[in-house]
Amino acid sequence: MGKTYEIVPDGGVTSPKGFKAGGLHCGLKKTDRHDLGVIYCEVPAAAAAVYTTNLFQAAPLQVTRESLAEEGVLRAVLVNSGNANACTGRQGEDDARAMRSGIAEALGIPKHQVAVASTGVIGELLKMDRVHAGIAKLPERLSADERGSDDFCQAILTTDLVKKTACVRLTVDGREVVIAGAAKGSGMIHPNMATMLGFVTTDAAIPAPLLQELLRESTDVTFNMITVDGDTSTNDMLVAMASGLAGNKPLSRDHADFAAFADGLRYVCEVLAKAIARDGEGATKLIETTVVGAGSDEDARAIAKTIIGSSLVKSAAFGADANWGRIIAAVGRAGVSDIDVNTVDIRLGDISVLEQSRPVAFDEEAALAYLKGDTVAIHVDLNHGSGRAVAWGCDLTYDYVRINAAYRT
Amino acid sequence: MGKTYEIVPDGGVTSPKGFKAGGLHCGLKKTDRHDLGVIYCEVPAAAAAVYTTNLFQAAPLQVTRESLAEEGVLRAVLVNSGNANACTGRQGEDDARAMRSGIAEALGIPKHQVAVASTGVIGELLKMDRVHAGIAKLPERLSADERGSDDFCQAILTTDLVKKTACVRLTVDGREVVIAGAAKGSGMIHPNMATMLGFVTTDAAIPAPLLQELLRESTDVTFNMITVDGDTSTNDMLVAMASGLAGNKPLSRDHADFAAFADGLRYVCEVLAKAIARDGEGATKLIETTVVGAGSDEDARAIAKTIIGSSLVKSAAFGADANWGRIIAAVGRAGVSDIDVNTVDIRLGDISVLEQSRPVAFDEEAALAYLKGDTVAIHVDLNHGSGRAVAWGCDLTYDYVRINAAYRT
Repeated sequence: MGKTYEIVPDGGVTSPKGFKAGGLHCGLKKTDRHDLGVIYCEVPAAAAAVYTTNLFQAAPLQVTRESLAEEGVLRAVLVNSGNANACTGRQGEDDARAMRSGIAEALGIPKHQVAVASTGVIGELLKMDRVHAGIAKLPERLSADERGSDDFCQAILTTDLVKKTACVRLTVDGREVVIAGAAKGSGMIHPNMATMLGFVTTDAAIPAPLLQELLRESTDVTFNMITVDGDTSTNDMLVAMASGLAGNKPLSRDHADFAAFADGLRYVCEVLAKAIARDGEGATKLIETTVVGAGSDEDARAIAKTIIGSSLVKSAAFGADANWGRIIAAVGRAGVSDIDVNTVDIRLGDISVLEQSRPVAFDEEAALAYLKGDTVAIHVDLNHGSGRAVAWGCDLTYDYVRINAAYRT
Repeated sequence: MGKTYEIVPDGGVTSPKGFKAGGLHCGLKKTDRHDLGVIYCEVPAAAAAVYTTNLFQAAPLQVTRESLAEEGVLRAVLVNSGNANACTGRQGEDDARAMRSGIAEALGIPKHQVAVASTGVIGELLKMDRVHAGIAKLPERLSADERGSDDFCQAILTTDLVKKTACVRLTVDGREVVIAGAAKGSGMIHPNMATMLGFVTTDAAIPAPLLQELLRESTDVTFNMITVDGDTSTNDMLVAMASGLAGNKPLSRDHADFAAFADGLRYVCEVLAKAIARDGEGATKLIETTVVGAGSDEDARAIAKTIIGSSLVKSAAFGADANWGRIIAAVGRAGVSDIDVNTVDIRLGDISVLEQSRPVAFDEEAALAYLKGDTVAIHVDLNHGSGRAVAWGCDLTYDYVRINAAYRT
């Protein structure tokens, strides 16, 4: 199947019709970088969200959940970085609600049409005077052009080194539909602190329940494939808003262009997920693990995530060491029993290192050269079934340890 | 309950009656350190073993399993380091069998009374000429004194920095019984390469089936509590041998001194497990996580292991950063649903940092001083039930990354 969408290189969350965004520094970060941002939709947007499975869910998630429960519609998402508003008890909930009311009032919209997200340090109360002062200035910072998208992207970063955006254009009912996204991650190799936030905007007309289904399906094969062991922070959240201003006939699973839209959405999520993996704390390279020939997709996912989550595999990738023994050891402890231990093939890029579970003599120089690149592809073929999956991660480096040895202080 | 055993500071695997040991350099390691060792028992010893759950089990494990299946008795364990003899196919199995036959012949004992263990790099064939030359010299290197134990301990190390031994003395039927052990680990924070080997000797009289049960029970609360996510290498193995030369009435669960023996065995295993954790690659400190108040011991174990396995918690420990947010995030993603998210207490040593799931103001200076020590105790009280568990790990450091970036090359 050819691509049904066209990539928009400079696109961002304000590219779809109806969206504005903005960001500013209100004082939650110690530096002068932006730490408060908003995405605003001129019309009520059909909305959907996916939340962390961590039992200790941060206050903003509860509030966002309540908003969406009312009518599945959002006009705005308010985000702060620098403070996760997690493990902050009743006061934290009150603060998240105050953020929601504050931006609703400033923008003149109902508060139940506002989502709230936070990222940063856990367990500290928000400096609400700063947040409120920032909220008051946000409406005048809204912009429908690149600046708005850019300011918003800056505002959601914590230890991220680069902004993460994606945008595609496709045709639905002969109308141009744009899907865009922004994300922050960086937390770590497997994001398990108050880490990952993602925001998707589109001008497609799509009912909220279907948007919710599609968002979940896309998440399963993108954002959820950069996490390991179900590692999820207290704040992980992905929110999607569809303005409907493209003017297409509302999408349904029977719609002729449904597959194209779903594919575009998955692509946007995948770009953001890979960007998060590549920009993992201290990372020098992206690792992409593809597992094929498993008994089921589920088995393939478990194995791909175990490999990508192995500190040994990650360290070896950092050192450009073709240590396939660590890969096969990860396969063997992934909790998947339906494999044949005698039929495993492993490739690093195009270099075959294991065939039928036996080492293959390979060119060490070529392997070293390949592994020194900025992307390492690990291919595992179990030669056992038709299940497949792809997972993304990054290498484990000195800088990772340095950053996380003193994140809080 | 007071201790029912006495610690023997200089004891080793040759301390129990009937055991000799030895080790030498045969050429499997690149350095001139010992890489081949044996424990020998003058009489047939009741034996038991626990093996890795990794699907890709190394050849020596298969061979050892076959030996024990014959009559549950061992006279010798032959161990090499430098090469794990894992993922080596049919040739690897032949080599493991040749090691067994070789040492059996050299010592004049039946080959089914020999266990074989290997540790080191995965996927390379053993240099069997060197192994055979070493085996031929081993009998004359056997010693019942400290030198034998010491040589053996040296021979099983890979990247370990220190030897790991433990020994206790207790009374059974008025007879002195000695339990001793040696181990190697070091692999990593959670040992998931061809890493952990453990050997326990005792002169107690105990039937092999009961020794097997006790070994499993001890392993569950010691060696298995330094691993994470079921992480297990292709070579992990723990072997126990009981010579019976103490002359006690054979132990049974009804025996008056059964609890004392079980307690001593558990202690020996715990000392070795903690030593492996403390000597984890690149480690600067031991982390001990105690979880109490869980709904069940199983829940407590899952949470303790998730905390101890978190790269973020480990990095924070390295940096002496009192980042309890990472601890609570680990609690919340441990896969345990039977907890109350509002009643969690966390202490670092004696310093309370979280009470009833809310941050507590604490003395940062005191916390820093405590976390800079060589042992960090993390206490989590869920205040929810009576389940409890203890797990051990180490910090994540620059040296860990350095060692594992180029382990193979």
